[in-house]
Amino acid sequence: MVWYMRVCGWVLRKKEIGKVVIIEVTGSRSKPYVLVFKEEREPQLYAVSKTLDVGTALCFEGEVATEQKSRRGIEYTVSKIEIYSKPASPLPVEVSGKVPSLLDTRIKYRWLLLRNPAEKAIFNIRESVFHAAREYLRRNGFHEVQTPKIVAAGAEGGATLFKVEYFEYQAYLSQSPQLYKQILMNAYPRVYEITPYFRAEKFNTPRHLNESWGIDVEQGFINGVEDVLETLENLVSYIINYVVDNNKEDLETLGVNLERINPPFKRLKFTEVVDILKSEGIEVSEKEDLPDHAEKKLGEIMKSKGHRLYFITGFPWNATGFYYMREDGSYTRKFDLDYEGLEIASGGQREHRYDKLVEALILKGLNPESFQFYLESFKYGIPPHGGFGLGVERLLMKMLNLENVREAILFVRDRTRLVP
Amino acid sequence: MVWYMRVCGWVLRKKEIGKVVIIEVTGSRSKPYVLVFKEEREPQLYAVSKTLDVGTALCFEGEVATEQKSRRGIEYTVSKIEIYSKPASPLPVEVSGKVPSLLDTRIKYRWLLLRNPAEKAIFNIRESVFHAAREYLRRNGFHEVQTPKIVAAGAEGGATLFKVEYFEYQAYLSQSPQLYKQILMNAYPRVYEITPYFRAEKFNTPRHLNESWGIDVEQGFINGVEDVLETLENLVSYIINYVVDNNKEDLETLGVNLERINPPFKRLKFTEVVDILKSEGIEVSEKEDLPDHAEKKLGEIMKSKGHRLYFITGFPWNATGFYYMREDGSYTRKFDLDYEGLEIASGGQREHRYDKLVEALILKGLNPESFQFYLESFKYGIPPHGGFGLGVERLLMKMLNLENVREAILFVRDRTRLVP
Repeated sequence: MVWYMRVCGWVLRKKEIGKVVIIEVTGSRSKPYVLVFKEEREPQLYAVSKTLDVGTALCFEGEVATEQKSRRGIEYTVSKIEIYSKPASPLPVEVSGKVPSLLDTRIKYRWLLLRNPAEKAIFNIRESVFHAAREYLRRNGFHEVQTPKIVAAGAEGGATLFKVEYFEYQAYLSQSPQLYKQILMNAYPRVYEITPYFRAEKFNTPRHLNESWGIDVEQGFINGVEDVLETLENLVSYIINYVVDNNKEDLETLGVNLERINPPFKRLKFTEVVDILKSEGIEVSEKEDLPDHAEKKLGEIMKSKGHRLYFITGFPWNATGFYYMREDGSYTRKFDLDYEGLEIASGGQREHRYDKLVEALILKGLNPESFQFYLESFKYGIPPHGGFGLGVERLLMKMLNLENVREAILFVRDRTRLVP
Repeated sequence: MVWYMRVCGWVLRKKEIGKVVIIEVTGSRSKPYVLVFKEEREPQLYAVSKTLDVGTALCFEGEVATEQKSRRGIEYTVSKIEIYSKPASPLPVEVSGKVPSLLDTRIKYRWLLLRNPAEKAIFNIRESVFHAAREYLRRNGFHEVQTPKIVAAGAEGGATLFKVEYFEYQAYLSQSPQLYKQILMNAYPRVYEITPYFRAEKFNTPRHLNESWGIDVEQGFINGVEDVLETLENLVSYIINYVVDNNKEDLETLGVNLERINPPFKRLKFTEVVDILKSEGIEVSEKEDLPDHAEKKLGEIMKSKGHRLYFITGFPWNATGFYYMREDGSYTRKFDLDYEGLEIASGGQREHRYDKLVEALILKGLNPESFQFYLESFKYGIPPHGGFGLGVERLLMKMLNLENVREAILFVRDRTRLVP
């Protein structure tokens, strides 16, 4: 948190009681700055304060008041006020938080509702998630890379790719940096990228976005998938604990009691999960991905046993991408990380043996020719490696008990939203 | 720089002299690790070392040798070697740096040539640029945000937008986060985003990319464009000085003598630039943007006067976007930052007054209806603000004396390249 002698922001509320004006200003922090002006104490500033309508952009100079009476924010003693802008129209939404807004309105007017303490708290925490992730990864020898977003082929095949006209070529938006991260396993022992994912999925659910953000990691020289699980559980714990330690004010504003967490997270084999669910009367296939209701049910069961976060490992080959290493014929080294019934990350050990990889592509009905640039990178000493993509919005949704993933991203791109 | 007791990487060179094997391994650092094995000293490791072909992926445990005899890298005393992978084919390019590769080859095989110390040095420095930028901006109260890459309208108009099929809608790839950064000036005093830019420009020059990266900043509550110039010159100085201090090994590997720099940078008014160039016999218009040869010539003149970096301020309205604040009829508060004749950043103070903004859109022949979501954000107390986009690859190109901007990005997207 950066502290200014000079604070800038917008008037959130204004209250006049007799010869006293109380102004709440919202700026960088989620808690408002509370400014009290008394006619008898500071007649000139008092006169100015009377002209400050809700929505006015101003900066003030001052210091934290020695006596803090306000429960809503931090009281400041003000020595100077500069007005930068006044609203031309009354605000179209109630930003002070008195009246809660509908999700639709929150998405449309996020840029204005961000003046609301609760809205700002979410995005201050989002910022911490990015910062903490980078701090953890950097300290653990992961190199930050940038991979292209305009690509010729997608890791998950064509159905969920957005098409881009790239001059005379047909191109796509990258669903995930995975193929590129893997290619880089030829020269960096460990890499990461925090990146947008573009997925043309037609789902319109509370947990899907068509443009979302992920913390994408790839780790070489591993001795098995366990090395990747450890990196992911350490990373997620680091992020959550960082927020607990550094966003107290924001969590308080949201009324969220986020608890510290420590690795290791529970590991469940996919086949175990099938057994657990069956014993609860939920029929699931041993060869398909888990349906949502089953994943949710598992979340309840695990929570009742004290596990907020847990891994599901060894997904069936039928339900995974071509690039996962197979354990035997039917299972793979793919895993998910679930947070109270919601998949927040997915990853695994990759197949790094050229011949096996070509075989897998063909088995999955893909054309090895389309993946030539990718395949070539498996010929020159690529080490065993694995990685994952961790969804930022889904992680935030669970950390902050949000009902919809759209609450965790500034500008929403979904089935119907392209603006703002 | 992270130090491991266990180091992983690839065999870059191998030399046998009598009963001694010398192996160079390349990992996270640009300088190779040099491992010396003697039959009489360590017969078992010596036997292993004889099998280590160029390209082998391995980890070793050891410590920095007390005596450093190698000029090429850091000598280690090894206690253990683990082999993770062996190349299936001979490497298609010479990665040790003995023979320089053509640019085409470097772009195609960047993922493999990154084993080359000079190639890795560039990207280690690129990483520092990202890190230093975030460190500076965070410390100065800028909030990190993420804006959408799939958009309905572009800041610079349609000609240089890539088209995206977004379900039943026509969408585009974002040329710049500028409109969104500006919208956020309604609720954050200062924001930044490090982001890809997508520009469908048909130029195929050594300084153009169609997917490039920028450090994009917007700053509210400014008292004029000078506040923005100061932020940019402080940021660029911080980045350059950070690299000087933290990437000594990489700069040495590249043979680059990067000097520290301190603000302020020289400010030249556009009209002054026209006069300077005219006095050198170069005819330029007072109403058009500078042609490349003029910008280059100016770079030479400024360098001879001791200015590596300098601002050109007050660009003519004819040559700028609709969103810049006009100084009078013909000039604006737009500026460029040039580094030895190359524009590396562009920005200015924006028009934040609603009526003036609508007027400007119409004057530029744009349809205010297409910018409705943007225009609406100027009604509710948006403060005076300004910002810039700083091109990462162009900055690196100049810092490291690279001949082509394509040397500064891992995967190149240009007029003809969509793979890898």
